[in-house]
Amino acid sequence: MNKLEQIEKIAIPSASKIALVVIDGLGGLPHPETGKTELETARTPNLDHLAEKGVCGLIEPLGPGLTPGSGPAHLALFGYDPFQFTIGRGILEALGIDFALQEGDVAARGNFCTVDSEGVILDRRAGRISTQECARLCGQLSQIKVGEVQPLVSPVRGHRFLVVFRGNNLYPDVSDSDPNQVGLKPNEVIALSPEAKKTAALAAEWVSKARDILANSYPANMVLLRGFSQRPSFPSMSQVYKLSPVAIATYPMYRGLARVVGMEVADVDSGSSIEQEFAVLAQHYASYDFFFLHVKQGDAAGEDGDFGEKVRVIEQVDAAVSRLTDLQPDVIVVTGDHSTPALLKAHSWHPVPFLLFSRWCRTDDVTEFSERACAKGALGRLPALEVMPLALANALKLTKFGA
Amino acid sequence: MNKLEQIEKIAIPSASKIALVVIDGLGGLPHPETGKTELETARTPNLDHLAEKGVCGLIEPLGPGLTPGSGPAHLALFGYDPFQFTIGRGILEALGIDFALQEGDVAARGNFCTVDSEGVILDRRAGRISTQECARLCGQLSQIKVGEVQPLVSPVRGHRFLVVFRGNNLYPDVSDSDPNQVGLKPNEVIALSPEAKKTAALAAEWVSKARDILANSYPANMVLLRGFSQRPSFPSMSQVYKLSPVAIATYPMYRGLARVVGMEVADVDSGSSIEQEFAVLAQHYASYDFFFLHVKQGDAAGEDGDFGEKVRVIEQVDAAVSRLTDLQPDVIVVTGDHSTPALLKAHSWHPVPFLLFSRWCRTDDVTEFSERACAKGALGRLPALEVMPLALANALKLTKFGA
Repeated sequence: MNKLEQIEKIAIPSASKIALVVIDGLGGLPHPETGKTELETARTPNLDHLAEKGVCGLIEPLGPGLTPGSGPAHLALFGYDPFQFTIGRGILEALGIDFALQEGDVAARGNFCTVDSEGVILDRRAGRISTQECARLCGQLSQIKVGEVQPLVSPVRGHRFLVVFRGNNLYPDVSDSDPNQVGLKPNEVIALSPEAKKTAALAAEWVSKARDILANSYPANMVLLRGFSQRPSFPSMSQVYKLSPVAIATYPMYRGLARVVGMEVADVDSGSSIEQEFAVLAQHYASYDFFFLHVKQGDAAGEDGDFGEKVRVIEQVDAAVSRLTDLQPDVIVVTGDHSTPALLKAHSWHPVPFLLFSRWCRTDDVTEFSERACAKGALGRLPALEVMPLALANALKLTKFGA
Repeated sequence: MNKLEQIEKIAIPSASKIALVVIDGLGGLPHPETGKTELETARTPNLDHLAEKGVCGLIEPLGPGLTPGSGPAHLALFGYDPFQFTIGRGILEALGIDFALQEGDVAARGNFCTVDSEGVILDRRAGRISTQECARLCGQLSQIKVGEVQPLVSPVRGHRFLVVFRGNNLYPDVSDSDPNQVGLKPNEVIALSPEAKKTAALAAEWVSKARDILANSYPANMVLLRGFSQRPSFPSMSQVYKLSPVAIATYPMYRGLARVVGMEVADVDSGSSIEQEFAVLAQHYASYDFFFLHVKQGDAAGEDGDFGEKVRVIEQVDAAVSRLTDLQPDVIVVTGDHSTPALLKAHSWHPVPFLLFSRWCRTDDVTEFSERACAKGALGRLPALEVMPLALANALKLTKFGA
C-alpha cells in the first residue's frame, strides 16, 4: 500500500479549511555582498509572524541533491509521489490551456527556437517571442498534414506551444527533439518502443514540415518538441483526502497540474497580481475547503537572475498574505515547490523554507521565515510528500491509524 | 530484505542491558496560559539529567501527520514496521488478558455501548461502566449460542470486552459493527471475503442475541464489535535481536503487544503505581537483558484532558527513574509511543520526545527533556522504527554491516 492509499483510509471530511500558498522557486542562495538570501533580504513581517506562531522546517521536494521540475515538485506538495505518479510535459501544457484532450491523444510541448543556417540552435526560446506572435505561427503550423493526421497546434505563452497528435494507434514513447541546450542541432524524434514507430515517424515528418514553414520567421525559425505523453489517470484529491479543493494560479501549467489531481480551477486572469490572486481566494473561500494558491513570479525572477525582483515578489506575498490570515483558515502552509536561487538562474536542489500555522501545530522557536531559521525548525528537513498529511492532521482531517 | 531481517543478520547476544521506558501519550501541546506543554511544565530533574548526558530527538511513530493507535505505535518502537506487521484489535485484547487462544479462533473487541429506542448510538462506552458490571454482563452474553458455536466472552476493563468465535472454518475478514461515532446505528457485520460468510453470519446473529439480552441493562444496552482477527505470527525479539526481553506493564493490551513480539511478561498487579513498576523491573533485573516498562497513566490523563494529572504522571516517572539509573543499565531510552496532548484529549500526530543515554551515545547540547529541547537534539526527527537499532547499537549488540 502506498502512502496515498494509507492516507485515503484515514482521511475524513470536515468543515476545517486549509490554504497552501506556494511561492514558486522560493528557496534561494545568499547574495555575495550581503550574505543574505532573497527571503532573508525581503521584509516579511506577516510571514515572520506566521513562522513565529507556527512550526517550521525545510522541505525536500524530491530528496537531497535532486532538482525538480515544476511537475514533480507540485505533485510532491500535493502528496503524490512524483516517482510513482508521472505526467508528461505535453499533457501538462494541454491541461494548462484547457485543451480538450481526447482518449488516445499524444501531446508534446513545443518551443519556438532560433537556429542558424546550419540548423544549430542559437536560442531555445526564440528571444521569447510574444504570445501574439506565437499564436500567429501556430496558425500556420496547424495547416501541416502528416499522413492522414492533421496535428492540432495551440499557442501557450511566449515561445511555448502545444502540439497534439490525434489518430489511431498513437503511443507516447518517442524521444524529444529538444536537446535542452544551445549549440546543438535538434535531435531526431525516434520511437522508444516498437509500437510507437508510427507516432515517431509522424512527429519527425511534422517537425520537418514545420521547419520549412518557419524558414523565414526569424527568430522563431524552428521548433523543439519534448514530453510526448498521454493523459494519466490519478486518484483525485477529493477521493483520497475527502477535500473540496480549488487552485488559484495565473500560469497554465499549474492550473493543469491542479486539474490532474482533481482540483477545480478558479477563473484567474493570467495577468493577475499577487494581491488579486489572494482576492480570488477570498471570493471562493466559502465554497471550498482546500486552497492552492500559486505565485509564479518568484520562480520567474529567480530564473532571470533578478535577485531584487525576487525580493519584491516575496514582499508582495507578505503584504497580500494578510488577506488570507483575515479569513482565519484552520491551517496555513507557506512554502515553495523548489528553490530557484537568483544566483543560479535555475531551479536547484536546495530544500525550501516551509511554515505551517494551525491551532494544533506545536510551535517551535523559529521567529523568522528564512532558509536559516527554518533549518532550525522543529520539523527539520521534511520530504515534500509529508506536507499534505501534516496539513490534513493539523486540520483534524485524519483519524487514527490502527487500534 | 526488510529492516528487521537486516538487523537480525547483525545482532549478537551480549551481557549488556537495555531499558526502554515508554510513557504512553508522552508528547503534548502547550497550555494556552503558560505556553508550556505537559512535559515542559513538569519538574523532571532526573530526566533532564539523562537528556543532558544522553542524546535527544523527536520520534515519528508512523510519519508526519499520522496519528497512531497503540498497537502500531508500540510495534514501531519494538522495531516492527506497523504497516507490514499488523495485528487485529481483537487479538490484542485477547493477548492482553491472557486469553488462551486456540488455532483458528477469531477474536473481536467488544464495547458495551448505549443506544436509544431507535437503536442509535448515544455513547460508545456506555458511560464507562465498571469492570465489575462488565464482568456481570459478559457472564450473561456467554450463554449465547449461535449455530453450533457458543462464543467465549471475557471482560477486559470498563466497557471493554473480548468475544472469541471458536469453531471450524472461521475467518477474520468480516466488517466491524462499530461505526466509530455516535449518532449512527451499529453497522451490520458482513463478510469481506467469500469464505468469511459463515463467520459474518454467526457474528451478526450473536450481536442480535446480545441486544435482546441487554435490552434492560441501560446504559450498557448494546454491544459494538470491531477488529475481528486471528493470531499473527511475528518473528520474536529473541530471534531477531538475540535479546532476552521482559515487559512490565499494568494494562492488558501492552502485555499483549509484548507477547506478540515474544517478550516475557512480568507479573504486575494492574493497580500498580509507577514506582511499583520500576520496583518490578529491579526485581527482574538479573534475569533479562531488555526491559520494556510501560506507563499507561500518561495517555489516560491526556485522553481525559487532564493537563495537571499528566504533569503529575510525568513527575512520578521522573522520581521513579532513579531506581532504574541506580541499576546502571548500558542503555536507557525514555520516550512515548505517541503524543496525547491534554488539549486534544486524544492521540495525535505530533512527534514524541526521545532520549537515549549510554556510554557511547555521543551527547548533544540538549539539557532538558521537553518537546522543544528534543526538537534541537542531534537525532532530529527520527522514525520510531529506528529506536531499536539505535538502542542495540548503543548496547554494542550490533556488528558491522558488510565487510
